[in-house]
Amino acid sequence: MTVPRTIEWVAESEAALIPGHVRLIDQTRLPIALEYVDTDDINVVWNAIKILQVRGAPAIGIAAAMGVAAAVQHSTTEGEAFLAEVDAAADYLATSRPTAVNLFWALDRMRRAAREAVRNASSEASQLGTQNAPPAHKLRTILVEEAMLIRDEDADMCRAIGKHGASLIADGNTVLTHCNAGGLATAEFGTALAPIYTATEQGKRIAVFADETRPLLQGSRLTAWELQQAGVDVTVICDNMAAQVMKEGRIDAVMVGSDRIAANGDAANKIGTYSVALAAKAHNIPFYVLAPTSTIDFDCPTGNDIPIEERAAEEVTEGFGKRTAPEGVKVYSPAFDVTPAELITAIICEKGIARPDYAESLAAFS
Amino acid sequence: MTVPRTIEWVAESEAALIPGHVRLIDQTRLPIALEYVDTDDINVVWNAIKILQVRGAPAIGIAAAMGVAAAVQHSTTEGEAFLAEVDAAADYLATSRPTAVNLFWALDRMRRAAREAVRNASSEASQLGTQNAPPAHKLRTILVEEAMLIRDEDADMCRAIGKHGASLIADGNTVLTHCNAGGLATAEFGTALAPIYTATEQGKRIAVFADETRPLLQGSRLTAWELQQAGVDVTVICDNMAAQVMKEGRIDAVMVGSDRIAANGDAANKIGTYSVALAAKAHNIPFYVLAPTSTIDFDCPTGNDIPIEERAAEEVTEGFGKRTAPEGVKVYSPAFDVTPAELITAIICEKGIARPDYAESLAAFS
Repeated sequence: MTVPRTIEWVAESEAALIPGHVRLIDQTRLPIALEYVDTDDINVVWNAIKILQVRGAPAIGIAAAMGVAAAVQHSTTEGEAFLAEVDAAADYLATSRPTAVNLFWALDRMRRAAREAVRNASSEASQLGTQNAPPAHKLRTILVEEAMLIRDEDADMCRAIGKHGASLIADGNTVLTHCNAGGLATAEFGTALAPIYTATEQGKRIAVFADETRPLLQGSRLTAWELQQAGVDVTVICDNMAAQVMKEGRIDAVMVGSDRIAANGDAANKIGTYSVALAAKAHNIPFYVLAPTSTIDFDCPTGNDIPIEERAAEEVTEGFGKRTAPEGVKVYSPAFDVTPAELITAIICEKGIARPDYAESLAAFS
Repeated sequence: MTVPRTIEWVAESEAALIPGHVRLIDQTRLPIALEYVDTDDINVVWNAIKILQVRGAPAIGIAAAMGVAAAVQHSTTEGEAFLAEVDAAADYLATSRPTAVNLFWALDRMRRAAREAVRNASSEASQLGTQNAPPAHKLRTILVEEAMLIRDEDADMCRAIGKHGASLIADGNTVLTHCNAGGLATAEFGTALAPIYTATEQGKRIAVFADETRPLLQGSRLTAWELQQAGVDVTVICDNMAAQVMKEGRIDAVMVGSDRIAANGDAANKIGTYSVALAAKAHNIPFYVLAPTSTIDFDCPTGNDIPIEERAAEEVTEGFGKRTAPEGVKVYSPAFDVTPAELITAIICEKGIARPDYAESLAAFS
């Protein structure tokens, strides 16, 4: 089984990490074509994040980190001048999606790595004499290594989620998922899809029903594509068919991601998730939320404290390149909904499986 | 308030019903443009039914009936020759949508009307002497009258449903509906939308949330359009947003149509209806099914006995003129689902309001 590599650092030779460039799957071309953005130009990385060629919080963070590393790799500054260059690159990339918390977190890691590298270089230099200071490209290699570490840590975290989650599904099971919390949103295995990949690697035959996920169709465009690429048996349905598919006895478990989990276990995710949870409850099908512990917001007591972003009408009325509702009609388009904890069978993080009462079981992950 | 006239007979002069022609709204052009098919050509009527320029069981029946009347209006045959002409027209139109029961029913009414007209003409002729037989165009006028009667009966039935249904909603209420069981599917008021039109006529301010209804978007294309035309406050949402909209307290009642109601009250309707019913139950919102009593199939004991038609994958993957899922992916697309009786607050027919136990209350309508 091969999961497509959403984003990676491509070194020009095997001998060294730099010179090199960022390679990411152009997700705006999916599912029609698999094309890559190959670039060492920070403007191209900025644009890739802006126009959603790369999307999903972890993937955006990795892209930005690699973007910083790519941007500064060719200069030869050191010390404060080098740090100013790194800061300028990070400041610029931070403007690509101003609401993406994970983007800022990854960029801050790059700034800290640069500072530490400069500190270490300076202390090394004072030990060895300035004329023997480490070469400028060593500072830059450290940045590439940091970006690759962010990627690898994410991949490991997803694999940990996958391992825990895979224990919940058996050979022959069919899993329903909503939206794309898969490899395309992360470094590799994703969150909601990680147990499916892990179980498949373990030799279990797992099939998937993917909700197409209106209005932006991440399910049919992205989830169906990446599962198909990995050789997983996947069937696309419209969102409004999920309850019927469950009623027909086709679904053994639901697995979805989450954008924010409240301290009591209420979980925000792509609009439509709540509807799936209600249907799962009605059919006694386990409903699992899979996300890194960083998704748990312990300062947020319940789902009522999670604000729901409203999206533009055009995504609903012109989502497919032609108008599908009358001119001037009102549209309401909440981007997320909150699934109440009582509909959630378990929350699976890299640290383990939390079950109700979530106030206690999630606190154990903090 | 003006509800668009889905289909009507247009006489060339006020003096007589013939010559005249069929006028129907070209629903394939909605919601972009309001255009009409004006024709007395049976081939054009056949095609209009075939390519869904007219859709909805009652509207198809009326179109076919008027198509027969239009087709034979210019000839001067009488007796058996006239009947053969009517039969040929009806046989031909019956092939336009071979699974539409209401189409056959309407065509049979036209055949019977023709036979009765010939019988009456013949008895009149034997009373008056053959030289004074009624003119050939009288036979044809009777056919137009029969087609208009089918239309008017449907309009009356919808208004009766509307009157009963309007008693269930109050000034200021917001109703959620799914698919299009509106005027565009019938002669005038529709079934699920009839209470909304009736309540609006009564001076109540009623707002509507319309599920877009994937895959074919009858909600955003048709329901939103006809409500907007009638001046009703309508908001389009994606199907997967209905539960969230209910959770936000925006919905006072759900009103949907039905294609077939089992004797126990289980109701088949457009895919996604079941999901809406589950969400309504979870939020204690009344869920109403509105349909003519002819929809009740007393030979069908429960919803388990209703076969679910499966539709073509392309409607899901290429529904908007461009591909939205990877080539070769599996698709499952049930066209209908069955909402179990226990989720239905009441079933509203032209004969009144049935409440549980439906086995008893529906039987009273038979």
